[in-house]
Amino acid sequence: MSLAARAGRVRSRLSTCEALLVSDLTNIRWLTGFTGSNGWVVLGPDALTFVTDGRYGQQAAQQMAASGVDATVLVGATGGETLAHLAATCAPFATTGFEATHVSFQQHATWAEAFDTTLVPTTGLVEVERRTKDDAEIEAMARACRIADGALAQVAPLLGTGLTEAQVRNRLEIAMRELGATGPSYETIVATGPTNAALPHHRPTDTLIEPGHTVIIDVGALVDGYHSDMTRSYVIGEPSALQRELYDVVLAAQQAGVAAVAAGVSTKQLDGVCRGIIADAGFGDWFTHGTGHGVGLLIHEDPFLNRASDAILQVGDVVTVEPGVYREGFGGIRVEDLVVVTSDGCRVLTASPKDSPCPPSPPTT
Amino acid sequence: MSLAARAGRVRSRLSTCEALLVSDLTNIRWLTGFTGSNGWVVLGPDALTFVTDGRYGQQAAQQMAASGVDATVLVGATGGETLAHLAATCAPFATTGFEATHVSFQQHATWAEAFDTTLVPTTGLVEVERRTKDDAEIEAMARACRIADGALAQVAPLLGTGLTEAQVRNRLEIAMRELGATGPSYETIVATGPTNAALPHHRPTDTLIEPGHTVIIDVGALVDGYHSDMTRSYVIGEPSALQRELYDVVLAAQQAGVAAVAAGVSTKQLDGVCRGIIADAGFGDWFTHGTGHGVGLLIHEDPFLNRASDAILQVGDVVTVEPGVYREGFGGIRVEDLVVVTSDGCRVLTASPKDSPCPPSPPTT
Repeated sequence: MSLAARAGRVRSRLSTCEALLVSDLTNIRWLTGFTGSNGWVVLGPDALTFVTDGRYGQQAAQQMAASGVDATVLVGATGGETLAHLAATCAPFATTGFEATHVSFQQHATWAEAFDTTLVPTTGLVEVERRTKDDAEIEAMARACRIADGALAQVAPLLGTGLTEAQVRNRLEIAMRELGATGPSYETIVATGPTNAALPHHRPTDTLIEPGHTVIIDVGALVDGYHSDMTRSYVIGEPSALQRELYDVVLAAQQAGVAAVAAGVSTKQLDGVCRGIIADAGFGDWFTHGTGHGVGLLIHEDPFLNRASDAILQVGDVVTVEPGVYREGFGGIRVEDLVVVTSDGCRVLTASPKDSPCPPSPPTT
Repeated sequence: MSLAARAGRVRSRLSTCEALLVSDLTNIRWLTGFTGSNGWVVLGPDALTFVTDGRYGQQAAQQMAASGVDATVLVGATGGETLAHLAATCAPFATTGFEATHVSFQQHATWAEAFDTTLVPTTGLVEVERRTKDDAEIEAMARACRIADGALAQVAPLLGTGLTEAQVRNRLEIAMRELGATGPSYETIVATGPTNAALPHHRPTDTLIEPGHTVIIDVGALVDGYHSDMTRSYVIGEPSALQRELYDVVLAAQQAGVAAVAAGVSTKQLDGVCRGIIADAGFGDWFTHGTGHGVGLLIHEDPFLNRASDAILQVGDVVTVEPGVYREGFGGIRVEDLVVVTSDGCRVLTASPKDSPCPPSPPTT
């Protein structure tokens, strides 16, 4: 399944429109290999036209050639010229679909006035194809996972040795770069103690990681535009009875969730597996977020695993399984792996140890 | 000018609607201090209501309290609950403005069906206030500039000593972290040689930086959510006559641009100052992008300095001045500073040397 074949997969889904005007940059990257910050694709029945501004004309032509995508590149020196290029490209089509969840109300109004074609709202025509990862995409994410595993293996032994949240974050991100990542997959979370770790998406501060703290580390790497996502939690020093109980409950919920991942399973059902174990232990209202989400060119993408989701897992989905518990005064614990749905269950891409809440011992040089 | 006063500045601009539903996360951060990835603000005549999901309820309450913002926080466990909170909050108002350039066509359709209030499209009501930076914002950006200056001072002497683009990028980003940045302000650009440096927004690769190359380094730091932006260009080894000529032309254009920055000057006029010097030297079609842009909580924001812009500079604008030339086979040269418009011209926030295309000598230890 080559990158150049993706346009055809999307074309086969066009039923309400002759052509599709793609404006979401992640969808454009998936379709063409283009990585810039401004551009549109008009996917006609027989041709792909790419419109961008002067910063990106040459880059777009190079990246599409490298991806084997046959495209015409049009460059507008101003917003008006770009608009005119788009209008002219769409003019031959009686109907042109647009991405209703990515195009702003204002952008649609501007296009509706400037274009001769009839604009038809569409949703998810590219995303539904993008959701299923091919071997190259899975390999990029597996590499990203190995890099995050390697960084955490370097840094986890240092927890409780006098570092702050921000210092641990810096060491993780530097290690990922040194191991070959183009960057962190998202803002690395390092959250320690009874207040900060109680926030699922805490940003690292100068708070010192100290004995008695729970520590949540949520870290991923970026490789060729693809993300990884993993969380491990620790207790500094000897865990209290409650810390150990909650760690064991979260780990059991997470392991049961991973074991339940398979094609045909509903994401709501999977969410229920994790949520049920935590609720049965009496901590249901400490679990304040969904169980997971798809990962790919975006860190959060379809399918989402939560109580409101109606998605069904399918082969090629790459999703997180990440139950957690949070409480002001206690802190928090979350355990998360990234898995790819296969024909016989799932393959776990993240490999950092999770069997114990105690950080590995520091090296004894 | 405190953060808590910002809501009042926006309220005073509401003329077509009783309340404003803010969905752009940058605008929300500016109004409330909230840094999470999901949330909406309903700005009523007398009250500010914040709606988010379970991940962010506690964080939002903490961050708004820290900012001195008096707000009611409502948490939805599902998208449906969040929608119901928004509908109920807007229900008392006959008309509610929404951000037409930030709300998707689909989101508007969903709201229009679910809400009793009449939705009124608005544009830029928060941005027009956000554009004018207060002293604390300028100080955050000045700190970010000093960090990028410090990182470049460490790394520039190493250009041409056997490092690749990606290695230089890594060293710059690590240095910025060590100097106190929360991260890079954007993907650091390091572009070398006749092909890569010809792309204004090249992504660093494993290409070696070698004698004869032009090298463009575009680097900024992030401090408290605020960005810096700076570009310096170099020639490795003895510059050729053409390399020196183009460096001098770009530097002259950039210095003339900075000298022309003042309140009341049109951004189009400023663009013309830089563009005119490069065109007069015979390289007009080598300058393929705008002259600059505003910087703040976003790396690219109003006002934009280009041929199509109709903005007028005003005191408190923070903008880049960054003419450049690019040509496949030659490479590229760009020089960029970040400046704040003051009552008597501008203050330049970036301080890295730019008088010569030759990198500083490596330390001789």
